[in-house]
Amino acid sequence: MVLIDGKAVAAQIKKEIAEEVVLIKEAGGKTPHLAAVLVGHDGGSETYVAAKVRTCEEVGFKSSLIHYEDDVKEEELLACVERLNNDTDVDGFIVQLPLPKHISEQKIIEAIDYRKDVDGFHPVNVGRMSIGLPCFVSATPAGILELIKRYGIETKGKHCVVLGRSNIVGKPMAALMMQKACPGDCTVTVCHSRSQNLKEMCLSADIIIAALGVPEFLKADMVKEGVVVIDVGTTRVPGASTKSGFKLTGDVKFDEVSPKCSYITPVPGGVGPMTIISLMRNTLLAGKKAICK
Amino acid sequence: MVLIDGKAVAAQIKKEIAEEVVLIKEAGGKTPHLAAVLVGHDGGSETYVAAKVRTCEEVGFKSSLIHYEDDVKEEELLACVERLNNDTDVDGFIVQLPLPKHISEQKIIEAIDYRKDVDGFHPVNVGRMSIGLPCFVSATPAGILELIKRYGIETKGKHCVVLGRSNIVGKPMAALMMQKACPGDCTVTVCHSRSQNLKEMCLSADIIIAALGVPEFLKADMVKEGVVVIDVGTTRVPGASTKSGFKLTGDVKFDEVSPKCSYITPVPGGVGPMTIISLMRNTLLAGKKAICK
Repeated sequence: MVLIDGKAVAAQIKKEIAEEVVLIKEAGGKTPHLAAVLVGHDGGSETYVAAKVRTCEEVGFKSSLIHYEDDVKEEELLACVERLNNDTDVDGFIVQLPLPKHISEQKIIEAIDYRKDVDGFHPVNVGRMSIGLPCFVSATPAGILELIKRYGIETKGKHCVVLGRSNIVGKPMAALMMQKACPGDCTVTVCHSRSQNLKEMCLSADIIIAALGVPEFLKADMVKEGVVVIDVGTTRVPGASTKSGFKLTGDVKFDEVSPKCSYITPVPGGVGPMTIISLMRNTLLAGKKAICK
Repeated sequence: MVLIDGKAVAAQIKKEIAEEVVLIKEAGGKTPHLAAVLVGHDGGSETYVAAKVRTCEEVGFKSSLIHYEDDVKEEELLACVERLNNDTDVDGFIVQLPLPKHISEQKIIEAIDYRKDVDGFHPVNVGRMSIGLPCFVSATPAGILELIKRYGIETKGKHCVVLGRSNIVGKPMAALMMQKACPGDCTVTVCHSRSQNLKEMCLSADIIIAALGVPEFLKADMVKEGVVVIDVGTTRVPGASTKSGFKLTGDVKFDEVSPKCSYITPVPGGVGPMTIISLMRNTLLAGKKAICK
């Protein structure tokens, strides 16, 4: 069993990006610039955005943080998006989700110029991904694909079962794994809460990508020997043994499933560390105008 | 075994659309207007476009046909698209594919205002469909969904196997069948030329949507009793017994598969007749500004 070390891969990619940024700067090129818009004081959001800004510094990007209070009006936020769309120094930007209830997240996402949409949530990027055109792939799916690639996991013709049909993980993951590409070329099955035959599907899977958000859902009797398991779940479960009082728990019952796996990602330390680095890669691509002119 | 009569359903929907157009006109509303752009003299394309224009007349739509020669320049075609985008009388329009090799189909598709993209090929419409937002769904997938709906075929929790991963049938069909909707809510598997386990997948399927373009690919020993089979294949196979010298052949070996089916679409007369009527429905929706403001 190989434990997929997302932390190590993320560190390696971070190093590669930093080296490329040095070369860009040495050649007199423009420093990639990521802007982040944060609304309110949700603890999770503040932590994520801070980590994104910090990683920008570490790889040599320029970053900007625009912070609004909880009561910001939708029009103000839309005007901000419009400013960032038109700011030629900003290569890519994100509006950290979730947003307060009085603001339509979809409206904000669709207002972003898709050429700067490094989160990959704009319908144009979702559609281009499905069609197989160059696009910004959202962070979690992009990170998972990179792990599969760097560990040299064979995907062609394999049966990949995706558990969950969310717009940010399940659906894009399915689209990517069925693509005529490497990684890709899988027979892909998407299971979800309504699936009647979920267990037998998992038992026939060569690769399982678990993104249901149900702690320890996938058990040993649901997987075959030699399966590859990618665990996207990150639910906070109360746990007295930790300082914070909770434990980050995946969708996989790791102790019993891992002995049957050829490869498995742990939680934490698997998919998680890849997400911010995927955003950095998208920002680098945006800076290089590598995806859309 | 129920034979799904696409011709009858299409005729029924045509009647419904025509009745709605009468009501719109009586209320002083605008007559829906579909424009079609045809390039060159491909026999298939000319026949399709003529049928679309004729159906417009039958349901009471206004239609326009813009015909270019084979040697039309890409810029001319882009200028035409731009004119149609800005023509407030045109509610929706299509550029009939395929286009001559010197013209980028993707460039033309992306130039179309997605709010007039009644073919549903623009990345915004593809992306919106994947996310589950209101959009123009392309004709063949929309037609299949309508057949499933009108025949009251249960889909929730069922295993739907889609054979083929094309951008115009396989991928959108998979996206629609996994959607939290009715029809929808299926466990969806997408198989294709690289799939190692295609036969066992088909054997476990409650619903099979065959869109590989391989004549008589699906055989009796690949399906279970009671399966629903939707045959999207339409390959012209030489056949001496017909006047035209060819026979339209589906992806399903109908004679041997049909006795095992609860429902099956014939070829011709199944999915085929639904495509033009789906385009008419999209045009009606465009006329009513029902999808995008």
